[in-house]
Amino acid sequence: MIPKIAMIGGGSWATAIIKMLSDNLTEKEIFWWMRNEEAIAHIKAFKHNPNYLSSVEIKVPEGNISADIRSIIAAADYLILNVPAAFLKETLKDVSPADLKGKKIISAIKGIVPDENQIIGEFINQKYNVPLTDILVISGPCHAEEVALEKLSYLTIASVDVDLADRFAKLLNTRYIKTNVSDDIFGTEYAAVLKNIYAVASGICHGLGYGDNFQAVLISNAIKEIKDFVDAVHPIDRDIKESAYLGDLLVTAYSQFSRNRTFGNMIGKGYTVKSAQLEMNMVAEGYYAANCMHYINQKYKVHMPISRAVYAILYEKHSPHIEMVLLTEQLS
Amino acid sequence: MIPKIAMIGGGSWATAIIKMLSDNLTEKEIFWWMRNEEAIAHIKAFKHNPNYLSSVEIKVPEGNISADIRSIIAAADYLILNVPAAFLKETLKDVSPADLKGKKIISAIKGIVPDENQIIGEFINQKYNVPLTDILVISGPCHAEEVALEKLSYLTIASVDVDLADRFAKLLNTRYIKTNVSDDIFGTEYAAVLKNIYAVASGICHGLGYGDNFQAVLISNAIKEIKDFVDAVHPIDRDIKESAYLGDLLVTAYSQFSRNRTFGNMIGKGYTVKSAQLEMNMVAEGYYAANCMHYINQKYKVHMPISRAVYAILYEKHSPHIEMVLLTEQLS
Repeated sequence: MIPKIAMIGGGSWATAIIKMLSDNLTEKEIFWWMRNEEAIAHIKAFKHNPNYLSSVEIKVPEGNISADIRSIIAAADYLILNVPAAFLKETLKDVSPADLKGKKIISAIKGIVPDENQIIGEFINQKYNVPLTDILVISGPCHAEEVALEKLSYLTIASVDVDLADRFAKLLNTRYIKTNVSDDIFGTEYAAVLKNIYAVASGICHGLGYGDNFQAVLISNAIKEIKDFVDAVHPIDRDIKESAYLGDLLVTAYSQFSRNRTFGNMIGKGYTVKSAQLEMNMVAEGYYAANCMHYINQKYKVHMPISRAVYAILYEKHSPHIEMVLLTEQLS
Repeated sequence: MIPKIAMIGGGSWATAIIKMLSDNLTEKEIFWWMRNEEAIAHIKAFKHNPNYLSSVEIKVPEGNISADIRSIIAAADYLILNVPAAFLKETLKDVSPADLKGKKIISAIKGIVPDENQIIGEFINQKYNVPLTDILVISGPCHAEEVALEKLSYLTIASVDVDLADRFAKLLNTRYIKTNVSDDIFGTEYAAVLKNIYAVASGICHGLGYGDNFQAVLISNAIKEIKDFVDAVHPIDRDIKESAYLGDLLVTAYSQFSRNRTFGNMIGKGYTVKSAQLEMNMVAEGYYAANCMHYINQKYKVHMPISRAVYAILYEKHSPHIEMVLLTEQLS
């Protein structure tokens, strides 16, 4: 039986993973759901996603691309969830636990489900009764734009079932994609969420005029916060220096193109949250993550001064200048 | 007794530390040795170092600046060594163990003494009989240029005698300099040396066309190499995520201005070592470090694939392209 893989989502990261799956040589059938019917028509006509990574040639058969989520899900045995976390519940509103029965669910989302304050794996496990052993996470330091350019990138595939993670990893490997396998779905997902908060922090500091020397201190302290948090949530033996954790933080916090960093930079320069969002015409994931993690951490009470400062600035309207001065006293 | 501190060296890092010492409010007397008599005359006349960080106002009394190293050393009880490692032996050639007796020696060099293959602290300890308890190291993620701009920076002062490190740290703290104290002179010095090799590696990869995704993987693996090496050389309990280790690596490897990264970039683009050095009109510290660490690691035999690849490219004339392809198979 050849694997049948459905992508749920039409953004740049979804397009990048579609490219990897297509370029990987293992025989497979690929299905693709996206909400936008015009984009689907364009892809069918021109073999390119008009809105994201539009240089990538799309090789998914026309008949396998649809805006009907239940038909796409029914056709596949692997589902890759790849919509913004904020839209996941809406995307899956017509999908029942029975629709997901027996399927492997892969989160490529890197976010927290709003209101639920759960990572994607937990949410799918609890709301859709998908066993944890059927849940996977794709993470790693990976800008989708560099996948389009076929620049070498390393992904980590995590699952409680490491054999399953390994089987799925073998569907993604290409000349330009190398994969690691991990059993740490909680640590991998939380690290991927937290890094967006630190990218916002990094932008705020840049906007306030802090330099590269301080940035290095900020990121060194950020990886300590990530380790302390994921060790508290899911205490297993893990090396936080691995690329799924530290590498993912680095590629985001040091990126000039990160939306989170750009958003933070505007906050540091004195924009209000609302005006920064209007100006950017989009919402940075780190903005949501700061709020969700604040609530989740009320349970774990991990000392996270950087996340705490970002929350205070974004949600309690504290002065970025004063919060960062206070923060500098807590870093080392 | 007010502390008497002598700076040995006239470069940008020396000028930055002179500024910190001058701006720090604890009473002290500062002495400054540099080789270049013209620079000394300029500083005495105009209160600015003509060659390095020339915006910084120099407040050292005229009579305390000299090219006579023995008189400067005789006047001080703290000596900060701050010449390139390659020139340390030449700089100290007229200095005897008796001249250093009873003095505290602070290494700000971040390099290996050529031929000896020793870090500065070891060399001063063994060749000048200075007890290890009188030796200190200044490190941390700190571009001198940002000190000139008074951008907030964190330094780490390490000594086997932590009280001494703490006393010396209190002479450096200013509004824009915060200090950490550590007992790890070996780990701090070796990490500071190794990071230059990884900055060269980072430049080579950039020159070869690798992108930010791979850079994040490279640096995640580099900090693992640093940890493995310093744990082998000096096995104490240390957190490699601290800013003296990870932060120092980040500020160097992610800097667009790093000489090591620029040198590596030219090697990756196909320049020979000699033509890159001629073109840059200077030598990157990572070039020497790769050689020294190769010899030092013949004793410890730590698995360091990135350092090994840089050595092979720079000293065994291996193809950067092939070495990096081989390296990518060993990273994760």
